[in-house]
Amino acid sequence: MSEVYIPVVLGTAREGRRSEAVAKYVHDIVSATESVRTELVDVRDHLMEATVNDSAESELADKWRAIADEADGFVLVSPEYNHSFPGELKMLIDRAFPEYKHKVFGVCGVSNGPWGGIRMAETIRSVLITLNAVVSNRTVMFSNVNELFDEGGNITDESYTEKVEGLMEDVVWYAQALKTAREAA
Amino acid sequence: MSEVYIPVVLGTAREGRRSEAVAKYVHDIVSATESVRTELVDVRDHLMEATVNDSAESELADKWRAIADEADGFVLVSPEYNHSFPGELKMLIDRAFPEYKHKVFGVCGVSNGPWGGIRMAETIRSVLITLNAVVSNRTVMFSNVNELFDEGGNITDESYTEKVEGLMEDVVWYAQALKTAREAA
Amino acid sequence: MSEVYIPVVLGTAREGRRSEAVAKYVHDIVSATESVRTELVDVRDHLMEATVNDSAESELADKWRAIADEADGFVLVSPEYNHSFPGELKMLIDRAFPEYKHKVFGVCGVSNGPWGGIRMAETIRSVLITLNAVVSNRTVMFSNVNELFDEGGNITDESYTEKVEGLMEDVVWYAQALKTAREAA
Amino acid sequence: MSEVYIPVVLGTAREGRRSEAVAKYVHDIVSATESVRTELVDVRDHLMEATVNDSAESELADKWRAIADEADGFVLVSPEYNHSFPGELKMLIDRAFPEYKHKVFGVCGVSNGPWGGIRMAETIRSVLITLNAVVSNRTVMFSNVNELFDEGGNITDESYTEKVEGLMEDVVWYAQALKTAREAA
Repeated sequence: MSEVYIPVVLGTAREGRRSEAVAKYVHDIVSATESVRTELVDVRDHLMEATVNDSAESELADKWRAIADEADGFVLVSPEYNHSFPGELKMLIDRAFPEYKHKVFGVCGVSNGPWGGIRMAETIRSVLITLNAVVSNRTVMFSNVNELFDEGGNITDESYTEKVEGLMEDVVWYAQALKTAREAA
Repeated sequence: MSEVYIPVVLGTAREGRRSEAVAKYVHDIVSATESVRTELVDVRDHLMEATVNDSAESELADKWRAIADEADGFVLVSPEYNHSFPGELKMLIDRAFPEYKHKVFGVCGVSNGPWGGIRMAETIRSVLITLNAVVSNRTVMFSNVNELFDEGGNITDESYTEKVEGLMEDVVWYAQALKTAREAA
Repeated sequence: MSEVYIPVVLGTAREGRRSEAVAKYVHDIVSATESVRTELVDVRDHLMEATVNDSAESELADKWRAIADEADGFVLVSPEYNHSFPGELKMLIDRAFPEYKHKVFGVCGVSNGPWGGIRMAETIRSVLITLNAVVSNRTVMFSNVNELFDEGGNITDESYTEKVEGLMEDVVWYAQALKTAREAA
Repeated sequence: MSEVYIPVVLGTAREGRRSEAVAKYVHDIVSATESVRTELVDVRDHLMEATVNDSAESELADKWRAIADEADGFVLVSPEYNHSFPGELKMLIDRAFPEYKHKVFGVCGVSNGPWGGIRMAETIRSVLITLNAVVSNRTVMFSNVNELFDEGGNITDESYTEKVEGLMEDVVWYAQALKTAREAA
């Protein structure tokens, strides 16, 4: 298998965000996945100034477009706000378009309730298909996140490892299949 | 009928935004609606700085929460980006929650293609219900917006007036019904 | 408060359906709700013959339209098949339209996994708003349904009672508010 | 390129259905597409009797599962009822599951209004991803269908040919890419 580049994107910028621990945990598993090169992309590092500023906009937008262009797939780690994604994640996604074509997205939802961001994972599907991208159905839901990590930042429920590995199995399958076809075209 | 307060929210901050002309046009009709008091809320005036800043955050958040608390309903005017809403509109919405309970939302979609933001209007429904709010089905779609207004900012297709008035008929019906019930509770 | 009529609709016709026990349980709570008159509507009793048959169609359609017309609101009890509703429930819903206007829907999801039909409850929202209806956000998710009822058909987790009562509180609030406004119009 | 099998599925059973002319038109274009073998599947031929009947169920279900198993992709032609798909199409889809894995769906929407079934095409996305399938973004919307075909059943707006060919370009690209990867696995 040829190497594929699959960045992990942390999709919330809120203070006190619990998804950061999840993103690091997911990033560790992605890093350990055979044939996968990755990086942790923090939406905070991509936020524009409030007042739209062309030069800042284009510099940050170019930075994201370069990552998206190089990527063969993406793993989004995002909380659910009002059954949907954070606005800042949508702003990041909207900054590119042709860069996503025929690539794959995996989704990890996070919430502090029992449902693990499952509705964010559902409602973002329509957006991701619109990017001419593929969405893996192997979504992982991180529920009750406030109790999920110990003080050292280690996950307390080991069953998540298998779930994320299952997601990665599907994401890598798609990433390889689509990369092969893109390069043959 | 008692007076209801229904602000019109312009949901995009992008430079060159065509939705601004639509929002002003919709605002004029809402202003002329019997028993309705309104205001044009521009999401640009509510954007936070990129780096999350608590004091700025809470001042701007308080400003929006005060508007939302006073409102009996809302008319959103928003373009469609990738079949969904702009991130900045979601950030604004997410800043309040109890303020929306048992109030009504009307939606006007905007696009420069033939479909008029119809998918944004569809996919935002789930978010709005989550706010414990009601969504009118009388959505108005502003298609081909680049040619819809003349140089003086006047709409060139008069049929939109009837559509927005139809939306307002339903929004005011709900706003009155829900206000009466909220005050009786 | 004036009486409101809120039928409970069992939305699956599959053999061995577990949602039947849930529908009966929900129906019992709805029956015991102050100011509410109800009935259990089984989608099985409303299925048409496979080959479209006009006379059968219109007799069954009329039966449903009469119920929908009389109703002030509805509580749907439905499993989730492939993150959405059963086809037979959609066929029933599509048989009426003006009958739903300015009425309220509550939703109870059912699944044998941990997520309790939560995605069915999410994806049906768009359909229900299209009926010019209101959707309560107080959705109840019945998870792990295979273990939820004992051999006598009694629920083994009493916490569901409070959840369904919470849903009914919101459904009745809307049903009363909208009925008052419909009758005043 | 190896041959791929991509049946066209007509998703409504209603009397007087206008989607039938669209399905035949789409089927002609799919038939003429290089490297594609196809067939027109009519949901009417797959309807079960109203009362769930095991033997009928399993014979019809087996028939659909055999088609789905052999297929490399699918083109759905479906009207929009209440912003979503017909119930009978959902019943057909729900009869298989592993057969869809890592295959592609294209969607053609039909309506007699201006929006061409665009919301059906949007809301079915979540279902199709749940099948572990891929959804092409090159959806084709057939608007104002009552005036779209002449008395001889010929389309009166030739611009649709290019749109359906564009959809097929993407569907075949995915079908080939995924078939290659499935066979290599």
